[in-house]
Amino acid sequence: MRTFVLTDVSHDAWVESFAIEGEALGSPAFRGCSVAKRRLHGGRREGVDLIEIDNGALAFSIIPTRGMNIWKASCGGDRIGWDSPTADGPVNPAYVNLLDLGGIGWLAGFDELLARCGLMSNGAPHRDGDTIVPLHGRIANIPASYVAIHIDDKPPHEIVVEGRVDESFLFGAGVRMTTRISTVPGSKRLTVRDEFENLKDQPVEMQILYHWNFGPPYLEEGSRFVAPVKTLIPRDPRAVEGLAAYDVYGPPEPGFAEQAYFFELLADGDAGKTVAMLRNQGGDKGVALRYPLAQLPCFTLWKNTAGARDGYVTGLEPAANYPNPRPFEKARGRVLTLPVNGRHVAETVLEALDDRSAVAKVEAEIGRLQAHAAPVVHLSPREPFAAEG
Amino acid sequence: MRTFVLTDVSHDAWVESFAIEGEALGSPAFRGCSVAKRRLHGGRREGVDLIEIDNGALAFSIIPTRGMNIWKASCGGDRIGWDSPTADGPVNPAYVNLLDLGGIGWLAGFDELLARCGLMSNGAPHRDGDTIVPLHGRIANIPASYVAIHIDDKPPHEIVVEGRVDESFLFGAGVRMTTRISTVPGSKRLTVRDEFENLKDQPVEMQILYHWNFGPPYLEEGSRFVAPVKTLIPRDPRAVEGLAAYDVYGPPEPGFAEQAYFFELLADGDAGKTVAMLRNQGGDKGVALRYPLAQLPCFTLWKNTAGARDGYVTGLEPAANYPNPRPFEKARGRVLTLPVNGRHVAETVLEALDDRSAVAKVEAEIGRLQAHAAPVVHLSPREPFAAEG
Amino acid sequence: MRTFVLTDVSHDAWVESFAIEGEALGSPAFRGCSVAKRRLHGGRREGVDLIEIDNGALAFSIIPTRGMNIWKASCGGDRIGWDSPTADGPVNPAYVNLLDLGGIGWLAGFDELLARCGLMSNGAPHRDGDTIVPLHGRIANIPASYVAIHIDDKPPHEIVVEGRVDESFLFGAGVRMTTRISTVPGSKRLTVRDEFENLKDQPVEMQILYHWNFGPPYLEEGSRFVAPVKTLIPRDPRAVEGLAAYDVYGPPEPGFAEQAYFFELLADGDAGKTVAMLRNQGGDKGVALRYPLAQLPCFTLWKNTAGARDGYVTGLEPAANYPNPRPFEKARGRVLTLPVNGRHVAETVLEALDDRSAVAKVEAEIGRLQAHAAPVVHLSPREPFAAEG
Repeated sequence: MRTFVLTDVSHDAWVESFAIEGEALGSPAFRGCSVAKRRLHGGRREGVDLIEIDNGALAFSIIPTRGMNIWKASCGGDRIGWDSPTADGPVNPAYVNLLDLGGIGWLAGFDELLARCGLMSNGAPHRDGDTIVPLHGRIANIPASYVAIHIDDKPPHEIVVEGRVDESFLFGAGVRMTTRISTVPGSKRLTVRDEFENLKDQPVEMQILYHWNFGPPYLEEGSRFVAPVKTLIPRDPRAVEGLAAYDVYGPPEPGFAEQAYFFELLADGDAGKTVAMLRNQGGDKGVALRYPLAQLPCFTLWKNTAGARDGYVTGLEPAANYPNPRPFEKARGRVLTLPVNGRHVAETVLEALDDRSAVAKVEAEIGRLQAHAAPVVHLSPREPFAAEG
Repeated sequence: MRTFVLTDVSHDAWVESFAIEGEALGSPAFRGCSVAKRRLHGGRREGVDLIEIDNGALAFSIIPTRGMNIWKASCGGDRIGWDSPTADGPVNPAYVNLLDLGGIGWLAGFDELLARCGLMSNGAPHRDGDTIVPLHGRIANIPASYVAIHIDDKPPHEIVVEGRVDESFLFGAGVRMTTRISTVPGSKRLTVRDEFENLKDQPVEMQILYHWNFGPPYLEEGSRFVAPVKTLIPRDPRAVEGLAAYDVYGPPEPGFAEQAYFFELLADGDAGKTVAMLRNQGGDKGVALRYPLAQLPCFTLWKNTAGARDGYVTGLEPAANYPNPRPFEKARGRVLTLPVNGRHVAETVLEALDDRSAVAKVEAEIGRLQAHAAPVVHLSPREPFAAEG
Repeated sequence: MRTFVLTDVSHDAWVESFAIEGEALGSPAFRGCSVAKRRLHGGRREGVDLIEIDNGALAFSIIPTRGMNIWKASCGGDRIGWDSPTADGPVNPAYVNLLDLGGIGWLAGFDELLARCGLMSNGAPHRDGDTIVPLHGRIANIPASYVAIHIDDKPPHEIVVEGRVDESFLFGAGVRMTTRISTVPGSKRLTVRDEFENLKDQPVEMQILYHWNFGPPYLEEGSRFVAPVKTLIPRDPRAVEGLAAYDVYGPPEPGFAEQAYFFELLADGDAGKTVAMLRNQGGDKGVALRYPLAQLPCFTLWKNTAGARDGYVTGLEPAANYPNPRPFEKARGRVLTLPVNGRHVAETVLEALDDRSAVAKVEAEIGRLQAHAAPVVHLSPREPFAAEG
């Protein structure tokens, strides 16, 4: 295992740029692979650090400056991600004011494939006395204080990007997230393993939601969302309007108002893992997310088939909670508490499916999970998932 | 035409410093001219990019980091601009919190000759539910994502600084401003041509106001504002107090409370252009703004003859609206709507007048425009321009 | 006297890194001394400038980017400072939103030995109409626009770090702070001399509080606060709970809620100086603050003996006011007014006491001051110091 430390504020270490490729990574197994880090300049991306990984089959970029979010990925020429109206990103958090626009300032920097939402809170903004609790929390806008790349010279030759992001201050939050984003040469998968650690001498609360966002070519008219559904709840009357075709996507439609569906998913009996997929109309391209339900029991599907230039995108969102305002989630027991020295781990695998057989295989896998139980579909928002009436 | 791209985030291009002068610009016509770009360091200007243009007669600096505002200019040894109590600018937007101070945080960075106000809104801050709509909007605090310099090797040898600033994000704004700030060797004029483009698949609304600010030597006791007035409306009771001498300036006066006057101006019949001027007491120095009324139908005169160290300054402000809170302007039809693929262009020429004959010539020109109609002066705030009573 | 200018925005001067040590400082007297400046990178400290001074006995670091606060110090192997839950500091103000968390966003960057609070306001946050007046004001988050190091080649060979921080803008604040933080070779003292200067042509108001913060080894179970008390007032009912042992510290106690005590202190007759001390249980380590009461008539003791990882810390806070919301202080005449061209100076000496005799000497000194009058201890919050009932 070779480790390259790129940022370590506690030891005053920081590397402005870095690049290794191919066998120089330590083994012939890395032929076609590359690992690089550079600093971006100009506009609102000034000073943003970017790490780019290519395993020969799947390439992706990570933004330490934005809480170790994943900016973009690509597989076989297909972009995995979306076209945000924020076209000049990745945006330095110094240029994001989360409190702006009545608490939805987070959107000004939102252009990633994966944006984590948390840790003090996530979900819809709300007012609590004089305090505005902003949309989706702060973690996506906190620069990582430690970043390292680990290259395993032994099979399966894992490439790991490790990052540490602290949301911690006096009288407030006290959670450290240590993420390990990994892949292996030639794989079409990447794994995001996050460990959340209580930094304090008291129990701390936290929320975490993984906002995975996909546009074309995975999203198109006739694309489908496929998952093993235990329960489905439309978030609000707008979601009810689309309930009959909740799993099918329309074309870009300027003026389309977002629809969100809350789910309980089914998992396999052993590891308790579930899988959710977005596949294109033709069934020859897809993306799948796999993760243990015990870590992330809640799932939200966000459908935003707005105009192509307005943000034509869908979010597949495994989470520890639903993205309701935090007090709503707290009252329903869906805010995590980390005891002193406590930890919570969440591990999600993203898989790119680039032909008909790969898509069909996941579809069959989901079918097998679904066979355990018939889906329960609520026709209107329902407690304890969403506010009724 | 030679082009030097200094920033282009979409192609990862950024040039830290750059300087060309004289004939090296491509023609003997550029003797005495220079074009340079550098990055500022230290204090609140840390990381601010500055472009400095000298055409041999007129010099000016542009701040890509602050939305392509014009920081300062000078002509014949006279500074064109003002002394802001913000003495350590230009201020990096990372150090400006627009929501601070009840929504007037914009003032913390305000020290420019030209500060654009918009694009989602401009004018007085106001509260809309939980949302504070901040003074003068965000555009002055958004770094440009594209900056280039174009040098024309053919007469009249135009020097153009092009910049692109996007105010665009999911569920929100969707306007790109492409500015071309240009001059020619030996000229005492510079032209600011802004094109505003709808980036979205839906109509978007926008506001734009050009906050041109002048202090000594153009502003002094006895300086006069001269413009072809169709209608004049004092903004509020405070403006009414100064109405009789609205066009004459007093000396620096600590404690002076600002006065603002709204105008409809007159234009010539052909191009529909108007001109407004600030001239000194002696009539041998002045600055004039020329622009088409169809692009910028509203004009505001801001008189702030406060103490010399408090901000002794006057604003000449051509705009698409008056700087009332946005809902007031919206209700009166003064918020622009850009249809899908729509554009709005606004082009203003700043001219430095450095002798008696130049001033007299513009004064005569304004006189000819005024001859078309007698000014209508309202003695109190009046709809639809300003809130009555 | 040799001067090294490190930052001067008005002359476009900025030095990225700088280091001199020992005799190279200009005299054999500087053997064992060093003076250095560097820029920090990575995480939330990206772009923060740090100045490090070592006089051979006492070492300390100053943060120009954070208003010339003092980050840490050390003497004889003992750290002078505290362990903040903000572990990745010093934090660039670009990543601090003072308005966050209902106005206590300041805490996100709070990890210093000395954090100044002011200048428009300090103390508890409060709402004034649509305006949130944030905790402890803005000065700790304004980068210095001028920084220089002065080395005196004549005895006593003073080493001075000079810095200038402006809190000034149109229609708002108008104060320049010029600080001189100084020490001499071999000394266990450092002096913070701040001059506050009205930059405007009108009177301006200001507040200033010096938030000196200490953790272990000076703070431990059985540590004591020692000062010549004229009057002691518990801030609130929570402080009343601890009144009987207000001057003794407990061990780290997770869940401990902060206690604050307001004081009038006694001074000597001549220079009007007072001294306050924190000493450890054994009486062989301490830190003392000396300053003229006329400059800083109010003193607050902040006891926050929370868990070791929650911020086990005490604040000794000489100030021109008590840290109540600004309107409360204003109504009681404790907001300073600087007349036109007016100045206010505040000079505090921090002394590290590293053996029993040094501690005993200060204890005796305080005893002599206390002999002038018996302390008046109020048993509950009392006007005009704190809100009653």
